[in-house]
Amino acid sequence: MSKKWNTFDVLRHSRHDWLNRLQLIKGNLALDHVDRAKEIIEEIIIQSRQEAKLSNLNAPKLAEYILTFNWCNHLFQLDFEVIGDEYDICTYEADLIELIAQCTAVLDSQVNVPADHHLLLTLQLYHEEIHLVFDFQGEVSDQNKLKLAFENPEVKSAKLIELEQTEQELVSTFLIK
Amino acid sequence: MSKKWNTFDVLRHSRHDWLNRLQLIKGNLALDHVDRAKEIIEEIIIQSRQEAKLSNLNAPKLAEYILTFNWCNHLFQLDFEVIGDEYDICTYEADLIELIAQCTAVLDSQVNVPADHHLLLTLQLYHEEIHLVFDFQGEVSDQNKLKLAFENPEVKSAKLIELEQTEQELVSTFLIK
Repeated sequence: MSKKWNTFDVLRHSRHDWLNRLQLIKGNLALDHVDRAKEIIEEIIIQSRQEAKLSNLNAPKLAEYILTFNWCNHLFQLDFEVIGDEYDICTYEADLIELIAQCTAVLDSQVNVPADHHLLLTLQLYHEEIHLVFDFQGEVSDQNKLKLAFENPEVKSAKLIELEQTEQELVSTFLIK
Repeated sequence: MSKKWNTFDVLRHSRHDWLNRLQLIKGNLALDHVDRAKEIIEEIIIQSRQEAKLSNLNAPKLAEYILTFNWCNHLFQLDFEVIGDEYDICTYEADLIELIAQCTAVLDSQVNVPADHHLLLTLQLYHEEIHLVFDFQGEVSDQNKLKLAFENPEVKSAKLIELEQTEQELVSTFLIK
């Protein structure tokens, strides 16, 4: 399900990602857009804090799965955020990975040819329970199929508690307990 | 000899390194030193090209060894550069790693308490032969011991062809053939 990375490839992908960010800063400085460059730096720092937060949940496989997702030729871009206090979510790790793998596989099978598709994954940590929100923006070939798949994930501990769908967006919230 | 990294740790170390670089750029922009910030970006891009070059020699273990070296609690900082055309140096990979491991172990055992010690490693690629240059700047407890160790590496294919030593610097060039 998840690719096994070696250090060499992780370093290569990571360097590539960071150089892209650096080029954005460089480009803005070249155009004398210093304030925009500063904003980009702040955005990168905020995203890095999210990465650090995700890495502090004693769920290293989940962190790895999410942090390397965009290196695996999917038909959409994944962004993520973690809301709430950091604590040990090791018990839920396997189910969270399984749920994300299932839902993203459905998205990959349903989105139309590569375009500007985005999935924002939000992990909401409430101690007594975890919510995982998929917010997908993009065009899909069959909205009903997509809805059906999100309504019936094959992950025991995951329960769909909210689903909203429009032509361009699907937001679904799962309770993991 | 070399640490086995997992993806999670590589991502964490790499993020940490890049955030340090970003902080340098941010700090200079905050002081309105835009030109210095641009210089730093150029330096980072040049260093990243060196990393990419090192990664294109069909010697992934050597690249990994060098690129992760500073994450391993050594008593000095390692920088590196690769000079010459990129080509397949796979035949020399194991010996290069062994030579670097031996020489850096000696340095670790000989340098005085952590201070501003630096090792610049230069890989010179001449197709018919490879030169590996160690340029160490820092204080060591026993200069003779250090010199002796560099003069007699236990790596068959490595031959010392030049060694210069002053109180603060040791430069040694090995031919690998």
